[in-house]
Amino acid sequence: MSTWEDNVRRVVPYVPGEQPKIKDIIKLNTNENPYPPSPMVINKQLELKNLRLYPDDKALVLVDAIADYHKVDSAQVFVGVGSDDVLAMAFMTFFNSDKKILFPDITYSFYDVWAELLGIPYRQPALDENFRLVKEDYYVENGGIVFPNPNAPTSIAEPVSFVEDIVKHNKDVVVIVDEAYVDFGGESALSLIDKYDNLLVVRTYSKSRSMAGIRIGYAIGSKKLIKYMNDVKFSYNSYTMNMPSQILGTESLKDEAYFRETVNKVIDTREWFSKEISELGFKCPKSSTNFIFMTHDKIPAKEIFEKARDNKIYVRYFNKPRIDNYLRVTIGTREEMEIFLEFLKSLEA
Amino acid sequence: MSTWEDNVRRVVPYVPGEQPKIKDIIKLNTNENPYPPSPMVINKQLELKNLRLYPDDKALVLVDAIADYHKVDSAQVFVGVGSDDVLAMAFMTFFNSDKKILFPDITYSFYDVWAELLGIPYRQPALDENFRLVKEDYYVENGGIVFPNPNAPTSIAEPVSFVEDIVKHNKDVVVIVDEAYVDFGGESALSLIDKYDNLLVVRTYSKSRSMAGIRIGYAIGSKKLIKYMNDVKFSYNSYTMNMPSQILGTESLKDEAYFRETVNKVIDTREWFSKEISELGFKCPKSSTNFIFMTHDKIPAKEIFEKARDNKIYVRYFNKPRIDNYLRVTIGTREEMEIFLEFLKSLEA
Repeated sequence: MSTWEDNVRRVVPYVPGEQPKIKDIIKLNTNENPYPPSPMVINKQLELKNLRLYPDDKALVLVDAIADYHKVDSAQVFVGVGSDDVLAMAFMTFFNSDKKILFPDITYSFYDVWAELLGIPYRQPALDENFRLVKEDYYVENGGIVFPNPNAPTSIAEPVSFVEDIVKHNKDVVVIVDEAYVDFGGESALSLIDKYDNLLVVRTYSKSRSMAGIRIGYAIGSKKLIKYMNDVKFSYNSYTMNMPSQILGTESLKDEAYFRETVNKVIDTREWFSKEISELGFKCPKSSTNFIFMTHDKIPAKEIFEKARDNKIYVRYFNKPRIDNYLRVTIGTREEMEIFLEFLKSLEA
Repeated sequence: MSTWEDNVRRVVPYVPGEQPKIKDIIKLNTNENPYPPSPMVINKQLELKNLRLYPDDKALVLVDAIADYHKVDSAQVFVGVGSDDVLAMAFMTFFNSDKKILFPDITYSFYDVWAELLGIPYRQPALDENFRLVKEDYYVENGGIVFPNPNAPTSIAEPVSFVEDIVKHNKDVVVIVDEAYVDFGGESALSLIDKYDNLLVVRTYSKSRSMAGIRIGYAIGSKKLIKYMNDVKFSYNSYTMNMPSQILGTESLKDEAYFRETVNKVIDTREWFSKEISELGFKCPKSSTNFIFMTHDKIPAKEIFEKARDNKIYVRYFNKPRIDNYLRVTIGTREEMEIFLEFLKSLEA
């Protein structure tokens, strides 16, 4: 081994859900939206000749549009390249104490990867036996808190009063609520933003806005929080949001009707599908997301996962303690879910 | 001040060149290309309905196209959101020793910002009185080396033999050569890649490819170097390169004729302009970039900078030791440079 390799940062990289290259599959494994973005996005003319110029480093058009949409001040909005960028930047900005940060044992699998990468000590309080967060676990000394609400891969949402209790008990640290899935049925903590200057709410365009391919995430919080994050961001890479992202991200916010319509279609399909599979003996927590977290007493999840893949249906299986008999299944179109349902019925037989 | 603020990462953010919002200006301050990207890029149909899906996290189409273009293996190519992302990721990956990393006192102003942000110790050997790198300054124990070639804002290129001497003396650390401007007249160190597994060459789409607005940078090096960088990247944000970037970045590489034509136009304008201003008593080092670094014995640079701005001509002025009587002037179109030249002549009078 060369000497220069002694000083390489060693990490265990995050492994995202499989993105199969083959066609004609039913892809229910990465929580993408089955519907395309708004026609206003698809038909937007991008003036690509302008690509010769740097994009606005502050992405002001997009920031202003997000601020208008959520009725907050533009100085309360931070934008990034997907919510992963926003969350990693928030970790880097706010989690610099010697105390352990806290996040659940079963949750978004990137949190521990960032903590490892950035050398942040952490502890993971266990969800209860019903996969619920236990708020009292977060009433202890810590270096910061992060959790998704609704949580993933459990799909379970906690009410805003629950979030407020955690924030109230943790005024000395930054509390990050990752609301990637909130539009599918959760209660947002945005209503608490003006009351707590240490609460950061993170959102994404990748799920409800059907724009995973554009890479936009954002955070809303107090002006103080957002300023600190921007300082770090501008010390790292000034121009991260490219011109197409700024323009198409802004366009998406103009079509509320389409947004609501597609979100509701996903919710309707989810409710129908959850009922259907319960009749097949599957159980899943009540989902407030665009996926369900399903298990069966008799048919092992890993077996279903593999057989489904053989049938060109991709779902997500986590070979991890406590959840290794569960599948995370993205809600696709009604037609896709009907095919998956038929497949599940064939297992029963 | 709230207690949570005690644990905030404090940084002095990088200040990029001014991006004025007013129209009808001549913008020679951020080294953008005066020509639009290739018509193949401008006319490319983006299938925006596909934005509902995550982009390929490995950006393989683009990585393969870059590898083909430079006749290297795809496993030797790392892509990022602009060369700033690539460089910051390389700092994070390779500069983890207690020894100081080295970069010139006069150079790209982001290097010290990243070093500060990431807690990397550094030292900045001085350029000589003609703003040339002194290679012997880099023959000392260090934690890594980074420099642009051609250098900025000086515009001066060193031959590849010079780079090789530095790499040869530093086999125990990673040496990063930032070739943002190389297409405008520099000699690339890519020819050394197969010989030295510790040499990383960084490129950008923002200058010669006229695509600053799309945010693409890349690095080429040994498979080992690239693997380590990818491990860190995938621990940070798996999906950074959005769908439009991957498609338009690939398209750009297909039009070599247009690329050469526009690069040559910039070079021709630069040579003509350099000659014209020398007749006005300005001096500038021989430029191998898309900008010139100019000074005048009698007219203070700061005064020219301010008067130019009053005339809606934006150039870059750095209020820093040793270079505070210089202007960095991007080469625009011939027409833009003629207007700037007339302005300079008016100062003389």
